[in-house]
Amino acid sequence: MGAHNLLILQGGGPTPVVNATLSSALSEAYARGKRKVFAARHAMEGLIGGHLVDLSDVSPDQLKRLSRTPGAALGSSRVKPTQQELRSIVDLLRKLDVHEALFIGGNGTMRAAHAFSDFCRSERYELRAIGAPKTIDNDIQGTDRCPGYGSAARYVAQSTRDLGMDVRALPQPVSILETMGRSVGWLAAASAIAKRDEQDAPHLICLPEIPFLVEKFLADLDRILKKQNWAIVVVCEGIRDKRGNPVYETPDLSQADALKRPMPGGVARHLAKIVSRELKVRCRDEKPGLIGRASMLHASKQDLADAEFVGAAAVRALDEGHTDRMISLSPLKRAGEPAATLVPLAAVTGSDRLVPQDWLCDGDVPLNHKFLEYAQPLIGDLLEYEFAVGSVERYANA
Amino acid sequence: MGAHNLLILQGGGPTPVVNATLSSALSEAYARGKRKVFAARHAMEGLIGGHLVDLSDVSPDQLKRLSRTPGAALGSSRVKPTQQELRSIVDLLRKLDVHEALFIGGNGTMRAAHAFSDFCRSERYELRAIGAPKTIDNDIQGTDRCPGYGSAARYVAQSTRDLGMDVRALPQPVSILETMGRSVGWLAAASAIAKRDEQDAPHLICLPEIPFLVEKFLADLDRILKKQNWAIVVVCEGIRDKRGNPVYETPDLSQADALKRPMPGGVARHLAKIVSRELKVRCRDEKPGLIGRASMLHASKQDLADAEFVGAAAVRALDEGHTDRMISLSPLKRAGEPAATLVPLAAVTGSDRLVPQDWLCDGDVPLNHKFLEYAQPLIGDLLEYEFAVGSVERYANA
Repeated sequence: MGAHNLLILQGGGPTPVVNATLSSALSEAYARGKRKVFAARHAMEGLIGGHLVDLSDVSPDQLKRLSRTPGAALGSSRVKPTQQELRSIVDLLRKLDVHEALFIGGNGTMRAAHAFSDFCRSERYELRAIGAPKTIDNDIQGTDRCPGYGSAARYVAQSTRDLGMDVRALPQPVSILETMGRSVGWLAAASAIAKRDEQDAPHLICLPEIPFLVEKFLADLDRILKKQNWAIVVVCEGIRDKRGNPVYETPDLSQADALKRPMPGGVARHLAKIVSRELKVRCRDEKPGLIGRASMLHASKQDLADAEFVGAAAVRALDEGHTDRMISLSPLKRAGEPAATLVPLAAVTGSDRLVPQDWLCDGDVPLNHKFLEYAQPLIGDLLEYEFAVGSVERYANA
Repeated sequence: MGAHNLLILQGGGPTPVVNATLSSALSEAYARGKRKVFAARHAMEGLIGGHLVDLSDVSPDQLKRLSRTPGAALGSSRVKPTQQELRSIVDLLRKLDVHEALFIGGNGTMRAAHAFSDFCRSERYELRAIGAPKTIDNDIQGTDRCPGYGSAARYVAQSTRDLGMDVRALPQPVSILETMGRSVGWLAAASAIAKRDEQDAPHLICLPEIPFLVEKFLADLDRILKKQNWAIVVVCEGIRDKRGNPVYETPDLSQADALKRPMPGGVARHLAKIVSRELKVRCRDEKPGLIGRASMLHASKQDLADAEFVGAAAVRALDEGHTDRMISLSPLKRAGEPAATLVPLAAVTGSDRLVPQDWLCDGDVPLNHKFLEYAQPLIGDLLEYEFAVGSVERYANA
């Protein structure tokens, strides 16, 4: 089955490890003797415009470097092709003799892969389509975890610990760290991994899975500050009130987006103002934003292993004749040893996967042992610091 | 001279390497047979309140971990003692038989060290005081560089490169990265190290040393976007207009600060709104804030070496009988080999050190080879990425 031409595309937002998936897919394609490997520049946009990259001959050195490069080397887009554009894409694939396609992406990309697969069938064009999961949000159904999450989660956990070391030394007592996640709290939840004991950061975590009540938030923070004088709050950009509405949205003044969507982010700054005004303490906010999904220094080993695994597994699945399926990572049995099965694309394109209710609990850090046991091996080790030196003593002053 | 008691304090904001200075000062103090080493909790605040830490017996393991721990283990403050409080501090030191003091900090701390040294002399209390420079801002006069800067600069440079890898893959074309620096542009300037060629991030850098004109900024960005469709802007939080006023300030709604100072930061968000509105493009902002000075993963080797060097050198200077001096790092002759002299504290407590005018130039990235040659060895290597794979081809579409 080897001597086919293969098309690869990357959809949705970049991650630190999505190029590792691409790199490993290319290695597997070469090993299996694919004749040509094409990649679409900026996903569907490149297919519509006939803007492709020939990746049939990337050197081993380049592949190695690519697998440790953040971003998305092929470029991404959120364009949805019209029926007519879909037809022109099929014509292009026919011309290039492409009958296998690998879609690397998140929920949107899996939906696009499924729809395109359907379209080809209706046009009687033979195309096998396989999806490889990719998202820092960890919100794809039907897989234990999504490559990209472990590294972005490690960024959040390590940064929470780092920020705690800084703020505990300061006279300025509160900082609110904002994580990405438009509708799910997986990334903000990951900060819980940084906490060793009660005094440690984070002291309060806000997730979209738990309705946000500003009065409760202020009362909780006030109680923490009365006890220890400083606090780190971790808040997901997508937190919602009890009606399900976003707590804060930044309007997009450009209105350049076809969907006129608001800009993501800004809720930490919004809450910092409320804290300053109501609790009369200086409150900062930190919003690393896209840096949190682009920092290769924070990449987790398990996440890199997962990302490479799904790339190779997807090419293997295509070669074995599967179609309309996604690579689904199985729960980890042993660290560093990913395993996977295939699930129908139709089964994963429903709703976003939230942090399960039975992994949540009451309290300032509302994640129970089920979440911690799940997230720890995906994140891996954090840097260990010296939290207290010497014995504190009080001297009567003159 | 060894058998004296030593007092250590850390002033100003934390850095990734200020605990390396503390750790190395402790090792040197033990090696020189100091009887007791005391540390003030939260600097002057601890001295006023008699809140000290006995650091006479920190284990080698702890010292090692401490030297790789961000934050400021002793705690910091910005309290300025009154005359009466100064007198009570002298009484406390007399009681503890302390006649040597090491002040680790920035401009404010060096001023405090000099003033305290003067006060002790006027009270006929024998105290030797030595300053060890510490600041991510790199704004202390009289030293080639300040420990803390190299690591925070490496954070900025690496994050600029990472962010560029992410944004170049996106349909959303502009991101503005905000760096710390209330009045000097050293950190924002460091992003220039990330740039390999014209297409690379950063595309535009704004420093307080160059008056900010919003019309010019928008015209420059528009020109860049017309050429390549995406851009990374790096902006120092402290940029000023041509009258010297801050371009943006976030009011502190808590009014908890004695000086009612505004909150630092927020200018990137302010500019992102202007860009969105005026250029009609979606523009994000990223503000890692304190994370940029707390990330041990980004610590630079040279900076760690410098930080350790000044700690040991300061204790040595005290032991040799010097007083009212700061350790001044000499320009680097060979990477990894710091050297220092002593300068009078009085000579470094004047104005903040700006990026020199003859290291600046016209252009979107307004730093010339003098700055790059200075900053490169302090920052060290960045991660090298694969910037382009495969040959881009265009296919006529049906």
